[in-house]
Amino acid sequence: MDCRIIKSPGENTLAILNRRKGSGPKGALEDVGAVGLVQGKLIEMVCAADVAEKAVGVVVEDIKGTCPQNMIMLAIFGDTASVMAAMDEIKRREKERLW
Amino acid sequence: MDCRIIKSPGENTLAILNRRKGSGPKGALEDVGAVGLVQGKLIEMVCAADVAEKAVGVVVEDIKGTCPQNMIMLAIFGDTASVMAAMDEIKRREKERLW
Amino acid sequence: MDCRIIKSPGENTLAILNRRKGSGPKGALEDVGAVGLVQGKLIEMVCAADVAEKAVGVVVEDIKGTCPQNMIMLAIFGDTASVMAAMDEIKRREKERLW
Amino acid sequence: MDCRIIKSPGENTLAILNRRKGSGPKGALEDVGAVGLVQGKLIEMVCAADVAEKAVGVVVEDIKGTCPQNMIMLAIFGDTASVMAAMDEIKRREKERLW
Amino acid sequence: MDCRIIKSPGENTLAILNRRKGSGPKGALEDVGAVGLVQGKLIEMVCAADVAEKAVGVVVEDIKGTCPQNMIMLAIFGDTASVMAAMDEIKRREKERLW
Amino acid sequence: MDCRIIKSPGENTLAILNRRKGSGPKGALEDVGAVGLVQGKLIEMVCAADVAEKAVGVVVEDIKGTCPQNMIMLAIFGDTASVMAAMDEIKRREKERLW
Repeated sequence: MDCRIIKSPGENTLAILNRRKGSGPKGALEDVGAVGLVQGKLIEMVCAADVAEKAVGVVVEDIKGTCPQNMIMLAIFGDTASVMAAMDEIKRREKERLW
Repeated sequence: MDCRIIKSPGENTLAILNRRKGSGPKGALEDVGAVGLVQGKLIEMVCAADVAEKAVGVVVEDIKGTCPQNMIMLAIFGDTASVMAAMDEIKRREKERLW
Repeated sequence: MDCRIIKSPGENTLAILNRRKGSGPKGALEDVGAVGLVQGKLIEMVCAADVAEKAVGVVVEDIKGTCPQNMIMLAIFGDTASVMAAMDEIKRREKERLW
Repeated sequence: MDCRIIKSPGENTLAILNRRKGSGPKGALEDVGAVGLVQGKLIEMVCAADVAEKAVGVVVEDIKGTCPQNMIMLAIFGDTASVMAAMDEIKRREKERLW
Repeated sequence: MDCRIIKSPGENTLAILNRRKGSGPKGALEDVGAVGLVQGKLIEMVCAADVAEKAVGVVVEDIKGTCPQNMIMLAIFGDTASVMAAMDEIKRREKERLW
Repeated sequence: MDCRIIKSPGENTLAILNRRKGSGPKGALEDVGAVGLVQGKLIEMVCAADVAEKAVGVVVEDIKGTCPQNMIMLAIFGDTASVMAAMDEIKRREKERLW
């Protein structure tokens, strides 16, 4: 599972994510402090989505690819501190295999 | 074959699963105690689906990906004890190669 | 090539197969004694389909995935004895490379 | 590159091939003595198609998969002797890297 | 992550890129001094897009493939010096794992 | 990157290529002396397309697959000498990593 954080994401970068989000093109996310990205197998993404969803101050979206090696990517939108906290929790849970 | 259990799954996590379930978008599953996830090759998923279906107190759905490495994922919905029992049976059968 | 047999397949398991069969959603197969599953490369599946088709008392269907590693799966429906005989013949032919 | 020959292919096996042929569903091939199958990378298939096309007494079709590892499969229809001659020529050319 | 630069790209080469750009077929890019290409996993592409977007004098587009190994490719259009500067920054960030 | 040349391509072989060319089904290429084929990663294909486009006497087309391992294939149409010259230049550039 691959994890990265983009701070103050640019407009086009958000557009690439908004074009592919699982909840559809409506309600595009803009003006977020940071985006956390998580890429892995579908089963890992669903578990990570659940961890992120239970964290505070972030919005979780599954990002559709067009037939990637790894099926979907998770994008976690929010202010920088909240995104970093959610990402840390995902990494900790994955490491300890708590699910 | 990869197996995981999410206890008290969040609303968005269930939405990700409901958007992709094989029986169509109708009859979305909500308010479940736990979700068991099984990811592997198509042939393994079909066999696991049959084991889970014969277990008590769970609903089995195949989750479509968009072109994953592993074709589909199985989601097993129910109360925590039933989901754990179904998952254990799937793992036992896979291990002993009983099919 | 991966081969498995499900005896007395459950209703939902048959539904997963019927949703994906190559001849379309019409003529869903129900009340079968057993299902033989064969997964491999397209070229192997076509050869296995021909062997199964020439066996007695079984119906052969190609099962579409959505972009799997292995392109299609073959499902062989029939009473338990017929399915087992067809599966044995496929495995024997594959082993001896008779095609 | 994987090569196989099915002699006196069954009706359903031809149906699986006819459903997927590149020239469309019209003009389904029936009553053929044998079918030669060749599976490999797209570039190999196009070269093999050219060799088979220049052979005598066979019809060449590219068979579409739904997102396989190997992009397409080639099916070579004709009487048994012609199909075997075309397949031998493809294997010889591939071996000696004559293209 | 694979990085290349095409100087004075030809008309057809730009057409191949324009046909696949994520923002749609409108606003085709023509008469650019150079194109930087970056191919990798989805998560790497999104991070690289953000770096490129924050560079000066370039336009960033995600290029859709039809089911590649690597999900998308990034194309960075601009004058030669700007494209080279943006590509150097992407490579530096990737190397030092600054995200 | 895989490179091959078909001399005096047959009618059906050209049809397989014409059915898949990136510029659409119009303007099918016929009566060409040779076809050069190049298969590799998307980023390699775009660079090779640019080299071929700058060569003399050839037409370059990207050939779409349906979800191959390697995303697209490049077909270079022209008289035999021109196709061979373009292919040699592509191989030389790839070898020396001139891009």
